[in-house]
Amino acid sequence: MGKVFVLGVGMSKFAKRPEVTIETMGVEAIREAVDDAQIDPKQIQAVYCGHTWQGMSAGQRVMAAFGFSGIPVTNLENACASGSCAIREAFFSVKSDRYDICLALGVEKLTGKFSGAITPAVEDLEASLGLTFPSLYALRAHRYMETYGLTSKQLAKIAVTNRKNAYYNNKSSFGQLINIEDVLNSRMVCSPLHLYDCNPTSDGAAAAIVVSEKIAKRIGGKPLEIVGSGLTSGKFEPGFIDMTFEDMTWRAAEEAYKMAGLGPNEIDFAEVHDCFTIAEILRTEGLGLCKRGEMVRWIEEGVNEITGKKPINPSGGLLGKGHPLGATGVAQIYELVRQLRGEAGQRQIKGAKVGLAHTRGGSVTGTEGGACVVTILKGP
Amino acid sequence: MGKVFVLGVGMSKFAKRPEVTIETMGVEAIREAVDDAQIDPKQIQAVYCGHTWQGMSAGQRVMAAFGFSGIPVTNLENACASGSCAIREAFFSVKSDRYDICLALGVEKLTGKFSGAITPAVEDLEASLGLTFPSLYALRAHRYMETYGLTSKQLAKIAVTNRKNAYYNNKSSFGQLINIEDVLNSRMVCSPLHLYDCNPTSDGAAAAIVVSEKIAKRIGGKPLEIVGSGLTSGKFEPGFIDMTFEDMTWRAAEEAYKMAGLGPNEIDFAEVHDCFTIAEILRTEGLGLCKRGEMVRWIEEGVNEITGKKPINPSGGLLGKGHPLGATGVAQIYELVRQLRGEAGQRQIKGAKVGLAHTRGGSVTGTEGGACVVTILKGP
Repeated sequence: MGKVFVLGVGMSKFAKRPEVTIETMGVEAIREAVDDAQIDPKQIQAVYCGHTWQGMSAGQRVMAAFGFSGIPVTNLENACASGSCAIREAFFSVKSDRYDICLALGVEKLTGKFSGAITPAVEDLEASLGLTFPSLYALRAHRYMETYGLTSKQLAKIAVTNRKNAYYNNKSSFGQLINIEDVLNSRMVCSPLHLYDCNPTSDGAAAAIVVSEKIAKRIGGKPLEIVGSGLTSGKFEPGFIDMTFEDMTWRAAEEAYKMAGLGPNEIDFAEVHDCFTIAEILRTEGLGLCKRGEMVRWIEEGVNEITGKKPINPSGGLLGKGHPLGATGVAQIYELVRQLRGEAGQRQIKGAKVGLAHTRGGSVTGTEGGACVVTILKGP
Repeated sequence: MGKVFVLGVGMSKFAKRPEVTIETMGVEAIREAVDDAQIDPKQIQAVYCGHTWQGMSAGQRVMAAFGFSGIPVTNLENACASGSCAIREAFFSVKSDRYDICLALGVEKLTGKFSGAITPAVEDLEASLGLTFPSLYALRAHRYMETYGLTSKQLAKIAVTNRKNAYYNNKSSFGQLINIEDVLNSRMVCSPLHLYDCNPTSDGAAAAIVVSEKIAKRIGGKPLEIVGSGLTSGKFEPGFIDMTFEDMTWRAAEEAYKMAGLGPNEIDFAEVHDCFTIAEILRTEGLGLCKRGEMVRWIEEGVNEITGKKPINPSGGLLGKGHPLGATGVAQIYELVRQLRGEAGQRQIKGAKVGLAHTRGGSVTGTEGGACVVTILKGP
């Protein structure tokens, strides 16, 4: 079986866009990806579309709007990890020699559907009793603070950093230059998490052209190899749960590292699922990029900043770009590609050779969720 | 790349089960499939779950109820073809050597969600103006009757045949021995389609264990090879649409035939998407199993009956089993396996060596839809 590459990427502006449909945003993203890959849209053989709440046959609707109906489309849902699953299924279908050129698409429109925190699934007992996402992550933040001496100021610094990264990202309308006081003075959502500790509601779409080695060689351009992919789900087991760690994240990472033949030390930078400031800490440590509890020092020393030794969320992450669920995972691949090609402009990480993307989604039970995906891309 | 096999199948009773959850039905189906495959549930490495309206992370919820959380689960949506896409993605992931043992799952609960015809997507302009599924298929029936001389009595005979097949299928609660008059005297839904020309609302789940050749050989049992798989979407183009044919069905079939190295003449029997009596005709002809217009004679002569030369929907199809969207495609594979192994009891087709399954789903625009899947299984 051959290697699999990302040949081109595109994304719509991530913003509150109440007047714009997923079809319009999807087409924006696909156009950029197709141009970037230097392919003719007619060459796309199959589409994998990740989304959560966009209704039946969302991928087909976007493709019809793009003007290329009649090709196989498969819609995927894994909550906040839906887009990453689109990347993963495109990867499998190219690897199994079924297709040479696939489009992985992620779309989501949240404005008009939700105001405030995203509604947990009605089936989720703990959530319906009040353990929504903000309150769950607030509990986890308290536990981490108690265990490792993390302060609210340090949490706030993550919000400041990620919004600054997004400020230099023209695909985000949420980036801004704020300071620690702005975060601490913002409205308290669920102690210790202020408004700026939470990611904003956003609409958006992202696209990636995933191809076989044969096509990558023929077309040229700047293909980046997908060297690792991991997917797992949370374990729903009774008993003690350590809220300062994510077993699920580590298991998905382990699969991806093993496939890539790489370890955490060889990852130069990562896009991780920072739905809250505390989440960036939990994921970075869960991925093994940082020892447990060490993120406190990292934040103080700026290790996770673009100029640091292990930049996290150079795109601005979910905190800085917002989080249109299905689009998020594909947008992470967009950032990995831009960084690895040296095309990230003012937020460029120097000498980045290997990047990792991490999303997780679904049920809020304990520290576990419905799905966690880790993808590793290697530079040219 | 190795061959891919279905090693075991299971399904819940298809019925109106308002008091039962998808978790309960899913577990019923998985238990039977696991027993049938003679594997330990712990051997399942990944799950693909097809469903349409069961909310976020449905597959994860079913697996947690089954007591095996922590393994990768991917949810797929392609309207009425969702379950078939679960089979297809399991097929790809085994073929690409990622996993050796996958579970393809389909679940859907419709009672309590819908009464009467399924609501078309809100985004579908024609449907919201009245071109719902019954009215679309009524138009197609009129056109076919006009072109090929089909009568209401002949349509009714399909309803009689499929409900009789289902009567001998203990997995269906809808099977019954009715006659042509019963159909013609049933309430008119949309002329020329009577109530019995339409499939009933149903709840249900189905499961299939999809494995690599290595596992099939090691475990033994009665593995059946997936020799062909095709997926396509409808073309949304302006201009004349021939409502008596399905280009989309033919394109999906063509892909599957090509992969299998088989033609329509080598297919011994088929499960096709008979959401309405007229639909069985359109699909059988669309698949090339029968020449265009020839189904009129087939019905008269009973060619499509279990004792005929080319049995269609021996399980009872959607008309006889009901149509729990996500579960339907996997339940078709259940029937193919039972028939090819000679385990279909009173509805057994003699000497069946190759079976085909066909689903289609999504938007009602013209004769095209959002997705069409064709799968071909070969006997031992």
